[in-house]
Amino acid sequence: MSFSPLIRQLIDALRVLPGVGQKTAQRTALHLLERDRSGALRLAQALTQAMEGVGYCQRCRTLSEEDVCSLCLDPRRDDSLLCIVEGPMDVYAVEQTGYRGRYFVLKGHLSPLDGLGPEAIGVPELLKRIDEGAFSEVILATNPTVEGEATAHYIAQLLANKGLVTSRIAHGMPLGGELELVDGGTLAHALAGRRPISL
Amino acid sequence: MSFSPLIRQLIDALRVLPGVGQKTAQRTALHLLERDRSGALRLAQALTQAMEGVGYCQRCRTLSEEDVCSLCLDPRRDDSLLCIVEGPMDVYAVEQTGYRGRYFVLKGHLSPLDGLGPEAIGVPELLKRIDEGAFSEVILATNPTVEGEATAHYIAQLLANKGLVTSRIAHGMPLGGELELVDGGTLAHALAGRRPISL
Repeated sequence: MSFSPLIRQLIDALRVLPGVGQKTAQRTALHLLERDRSGALRLAQALTQAMEGVGYCQRCRTLSEEDVCSLCLDPRRDDSLLCIVEGPMDVYAVEQTGYRGRYFVLKGHLSPLDGLGPEAIGVPELLKRIDEGAFSEVILATNPTVEGEATAHYIAQLLANKGLVTSRIAHGMPLGGELELVDGGTLAHALAGRRPISL
Repeated sequence: MSFSPLIRQLIDALRVLPGVGQKTAQRTALHLLERDRSGALRLAQALTQAMEGVGYCQRCRTLSEEDVCSLCLDPRRDDSLLCIVEGPMDVYAVEQTGYRGRYFVLKGHLSPLDGLGPEAIGVPELLKRIDEGAFSEVILATNPTVEGEATAHYIAQLLANKGLVTSRIAHGMPLGGELELVDGGTLAHALAGRRPISL
């Protein structure tokens, strides 16, 4: 037997959610139908409103329903610092560290094999943003992956003659990690980047 | 910093999904906004249509968008067999075994501590359905939990004088299980329910 058409359509649609396969979609659909129809209707409305209402900030290009996001408008932030990240989720991660400069959000990282060159990830807009601003330091906070490193290196080269300090986030041991479990590349970075202990 | 209002509303709404906490909801919201807006809009529409369009079959009380579901209308099924389960998901599970009789779907199991008595789970409707039908056997396929057993026992008592065979699904070792891993109660059932090997 098969599910009735509307239930089948809901199960198929639920599979757009990351990590949701056929079985989870079935359970979720029946759970919502049996236990929480008002919650499901609220979810439908929230999805529609967010997908239609949320765009990108014109200045930092993070997700925002305003033309310019609240982070870019906040007058208390440090206008001399610009942090470059690969996506909006990274902005939230960096915010939790207490960083209070400005941001620029790339659309991912350079990936020539996928046809993603500098234009596709928004490098021209980044250069325009830097020229318009009055930054003294640009922090390259792309992910510490091969593609993220290449993207950081590429951008650093473009900025070489602009009279800016260009920095890269540190690589090393994650807090709570164990030396015997960490990969060799990370440990090599941790050794090379060692610092004197100030007592 | 906090997410913008529409994104925050979407994150909150996503938490109606079973097993989705704050972090998964955030990732899901940003994933949909960045990668699959059309899929998210399809999901919103499917949710609305299903929540508003799917009700319960008048005969077997499973989820159905028609007054009487396709299982109840199918003339090729065995009208002498009735299988009683705790929920719509159980119907799909039993269907996969090749069972081709009729169904009746309770609203869960008896749970006096939660105030769920026979009326709340639909026992009166079950008795009406049995009186209207021409069943020779009623299979009690509630879950093998304390509550499910109590529910099966209670219904079996109600049906004692109706001239029906009342049966309970077998308890024993699940296929692929290991004796040393299974609990004592299951193993005791498996021993007590042993059958002669027919060669």
